[in-house]
Amino acid sequence: MGRLEDFRSFRERMNKRIIETGNIDTKRFFSLDGAVYEDGALDSKTKELMGLVASAVLRCDDCIAYHIIQCKATGSSREEIMEALNVALIVGGSIVIPHFRRAVELLDELEAE
Amino acid sequence: MGRLEDFRSFRERMNKRIIETGNIDTKRFFSLDGAVYEDGALDSKTKELMGLVASAVLRCDDCIAYHIIQCKATGSSREEIMEALNVALIVGGSIVIPHFRRAVELLDELEAE
Amino acid sequence: MGRLEDFRSFRERMNKRIIETGNIDTKRFFSLDGAVYEDGALDSKTKELMGLVASAVLRCDDCIAYHIIQCKATGSSREEIMEALNVALIVGGSIVIPHFRRAVELLDELEAE
Amino acid sequence: MGRLEDFRSFRERMNKRIIETGNIDTKRFFSLDGAVYEDGALDSKTKELMGLVASAVLRCDDCIAYHIIQCKATGSSREEIMEALNVALIVGGSIVIPHFRRAVELLDELEAE
Amino acid sequence: MGRLEDFRSFRERMNKRIIETGNIDTKRFFSLDGAVYEDGALDSKTKELMGLVASAVLRCDDCIAYHIIQCKATGSSREEIMEALNVALIVGGSIVIPHFRRAVELLDELEAE
Amino acid sequence: MGRLEDFRSFRERMNKRIIETGNIDTKRFFSLDGAVYEDGALDSKTKELMGLVASAVLRCDDCIAYHIIQCKATGSSREEIMEALNVALIVGGSIVIPHFRRAVELLDELEAE
Repeated sequence: MGRLEDFRSFRERMNKRIIETGNIDTKRFFSLDGAVYEDGALDSKTKELMGLVASAVLRCDDCIAYHIIQCKATGSSREEIMEALNVALIVGGSIVIPHFRRAVELLDELEAE
Repeated sequence: MGRLEDFRSFRERMNKRIIETGNIDTKRFFSLDGAVYEDGALDSKTKELMGLVASAVLRCDDCIAYHIIQCKATGSSREEIMEALNVALIVGGSIVIPHFRRAVELLDELEAE
Repeated sequence: MGRLEDFRSFRERMNKRIIETGNIDTKRFFSLDGAVYEDGALDSKTKELMGLVASAVLRCDDCIAYHIIQCKATGSSREEIMEALNVALIVGGSIVIPHFRRAVELLDELEAE
Repeated sequence: MGRLEDFRSFRERMNKRIIETGNIDTKRFFSLDGAVYEDGALDSKTKELMGLVASAVLRCDDCIAYHIIQCKATGSSREEIMEALNVALIVGGSIVIPHFRRAVELLDELEAE
Repeated sequence: MGRLEDFRSFRERMNKRIIETGNIDTKRFFSLDGAVYEDGALDSKTKELMGLVASAVLRCDDCIAYHIIQCKATGSSREEIMEALNVALIVGGSIVIPHFRRAVELLDELEAE
Repeated sequence: MGRLEDFRSFRERMNKRIIETGNIDTKRFFSLDGAVYEDGALDSKTKELMGLVASAVLRCDDCIAYHIIQCKATGSSREEIMEALNVALIVGGSIVIPHFRRAVELLDELEAE
């Protein structure tokens, strides 16, 4: 219905299609991309917040959406997510603001679920 | 109705939401972002054109939309705006072209209001 | 109907509008942008694949769409296009993935035409 | 003597020069940039690691150097720093590798002090 | 002797080498790049300031150096240049700061000539 | 002696250091980064040229240096390399020029070996 659901279903459908039709290196990268946020020297919660900051300064809405969902799933509070976004805002500048808006909209939608 | 109206209402609604729920540093950055385009050694008109060029080379459609609206409000002509976009095109290359298209569409919509 | 058709008609309409209302330097750049993918020391097929990789690492969906269409028109197979996207994925990282998804969706739509 | 010392002295000298000759908004931004890594909902250590990841995906050697120094000062271990750099590597791709090399060189130099 | 002289001599030598050995499209782009900052609807001074802002948000030290030299040559004061850099700082965020430092160093060197 | 030798020895030394001290995901990514340019649906020569174009539009001098060396090793002529750089120039704009200069300097140094 909302942006959240569109994002989830498109992501799932196309990731499946990439894995089906992509080459072996693409599959290895997707596997690596999954592994990198698992608990290690840093816990998964911290890494997902890092993924959110990286996505925000690189200004990728889908990546921001994905990591906000993961941040919630790994136990970050709204205050922690807002603070991570604020770090991204100062590092990345006003060009981050439109993505900040969409991040907060998605966060609101996610909390309303 | 058009892209212009969608942009304006979403921007207003979510900026309000960020100010309400964001932390003090976020609020300070938003205030700074407002102050930076005011008259100083350079006038507001020149600074808004600079904001447009920066937004175009960084390829942020919402930022481009915002600065085109502000360029019109501070007295830039269509010819001046097109020349600013042209500077961005040469600095930023063909990757700027899709944003140039949407900028001209918005400029047309703005002039038709 | 689909994303492909929307892209094509918007691109054609707004390029026309830019050429009509843009300045002489903008027109010269558009002409240069057309010339650069023609056969030379490297053939057009290779250059379109290069354009695709450049567009993917710079994360511009419209540029990716354009070069996928051109790659097909200059004889690249789906396997070659997927391999080019894979190079972009490793160079550009996971931030490229959302664009990879939309590229594969468009490739599917293009092959269904 | 090494890169670390060059970085520190140049940074100190030119920040002073910017504060002396810059305008009020520049000073306000520098103050905000200092405040953003302080303890809040997230602690300073986590925020410095976020600053490191953001700097690495944006590929800014001086910013990486600064945040590695701060990560050490706020108690991050080498393993935690290497894991943060690894998150940046997967998000940002192989284009991050040259910066990864210089980051590890600086980390070695910092640990040898 | 200083960074300014190194930049000027390397730039002149290698531009010559590119023009000698590059293809016709490269030469056409270099010609276009020269033309774009000439007086038009906007004057050359304003366009060089725009080139500076674009270079700063894209974080290219050589481009910043070039446009600072051109800004001085087309009559911008230090205050105007500092204000242009400040616009870039707010748009581009703290990641711009290392380039701001080198810009001010070069500006100091240029004024000491 | 020249930039080429500095690049090669630093690259070798620090890659070794990253592999020694980095985590398992970092090693897997380095392995993937090596595999991606091997012959497949596209040959290695074409993929190295793509790597060069990607590096040039992302403006990474070390990556450009690496791929120019690899382009020579996989049989690309100077004309083909210059044409690949030209594609990057038109896609990426004048911001690519400083990297183009250093690329041609390195190409000259490489051919003089």
